[in-house]
Amino acid sequence: MSATPKPEPEVRKTKIADTVPGVDPLIRSRWSPRSFSSRMVSPEDLRTLFEAARWAASSYNEQPWRFLVATKSDPAAYQKILNLLVEFNQQWASTAPVLVITAAKKTFSHSGAPNRHAMYDAGAALAYLMLQATALGLHAHGMAGFDHERARQVLGIPDDYEVGAAVAIGYVDAPEKLPEQYRAGEVSPRQRKPLDQIVFGAQWEQPFKP
Amino acid sequence: MSATPKPEPEVRKTKIADTVPGVDPLIRSRWSPRSFSSRMVSPEDLRTLFEAARWAASSYNEQPWRFLVATKSDPAAYQKILNLLVEFNQQWASTAPVLVITAAKKTFSHSGAPNRHAMYDAGAALAYLMLQATALGLHAHGMAGFDHERARQVLGIPDDYEVGAAVAIGYVDAPEKLPEQYRAGEVSPRQRKPLDQIVFGAQWEQPFKP
Repeated sequence: MSATPKPEPEVRKTKIADTVPGVDPLIRSRWSPRSFSSRMVSPEDLRTLFEAARWAASSYNEQPWRFLVATKSDPAAYQKILNLLVEFNQQWASTAPVLVITAAKKTFSHSGAPNRHAMYDAGAALAYLMLQATALGLHAHGMAGFDHERARQVLGIPDDYEVGAAVAIGYVDAPEKLPEQYRAGEVSPRQRKPLDQIVFGAQWEQPFKP
Repeated sequence: MSATPKPEPEVRKTKIADTVPGVDPLIRSRWSPRSFSSRMVSPEDLRTLFEAARWAASSYNEQPWRFLVATKSDPAAYQKILNLLVEFNQQWASTAPVLVITAAKKTFSHSGAPNRHAMYDAGAALAYLMLQATALGLHAHGMAGFDHERARQVLGIPDDYEVGAAVAIGYVDAPEKLPEQYRAGEVSPRQRKPLDQIVFGAQWEQPFKP
């Protein structure tokens, strides 16, 4: 972190999920910052992140997930991914030392048939990566705001793969490091729909009574 | 578990991921059994599972994930979901006390525009649920093998939602409880592609050198 101010622990308490006590600490404390410190992520930790993603579950164990990765130690590669992001995301994501674009193989390797769960399973793998980031004291922030078609062209993603998400990874830093319009989100409480809006019984929108 | 034989700990060691030491224990030890004990999942643990799913990250915080849930304490509801599964899955999934069908909202609530990350984010939420299951001593097994269109009709899933996965949830039991053709998978080591087949630099299939 060198000379940059350390984030106040009490500020980040707003990012702890307001949930029941049994929820795993990684799930409870993962969140998506926009202010990243200049501290690099070690090659060992990077490997651990992708190892975690590697062990997600997938339909027919197809493992449709792919990750294209660049760090600031290779400025040309880093810039190549950064340039794909929409302006709003470039502004803050450029503070992160690692950028990733994900992709998902749309067909099964064993049959060539369409894999309707490709994106679903690729999302699971990214969730693993994000929780593993939390376990390592890192943060990962997923983004939909980038040019998917240009990503395909620039990175050479084949037609048989769907372009997934962009992800910024690094160590969190103080909100004050960001331009003003990004700061409020760094400290505001995380919000979710109530449970009864996402969990139903065996009929749509009927309550589940365990 | 009552009178059913307790699984041998040394047998299930084959299900621990062969990975680097830093990978989180939940990620390392989650796997997808087919033999579930008749032990029910408590309402409190069920709530914790869906609370965990609730805190996944999503594009624009849309939270597109939905879960339709039935347990064996409501046999009609349980049968309704079990009947959607392909025969191969019904055989083993009928041992699990809880069955779930997931869905993902295909459009953004704030704009009505298509949400290309709906399935991706719903997959992340299911990944959280699965890891939370591991944290609670439970297991969750996702399935693509069910009739997606009949699920939509029977459960009343609206057109604006994509049908996702089916999931069996419960406590693991001995492989011997299953018909013979399902047993080998209960003890065989988990397999994944090598890391260099899923992680590239900022160009497709070029190695990532951190």
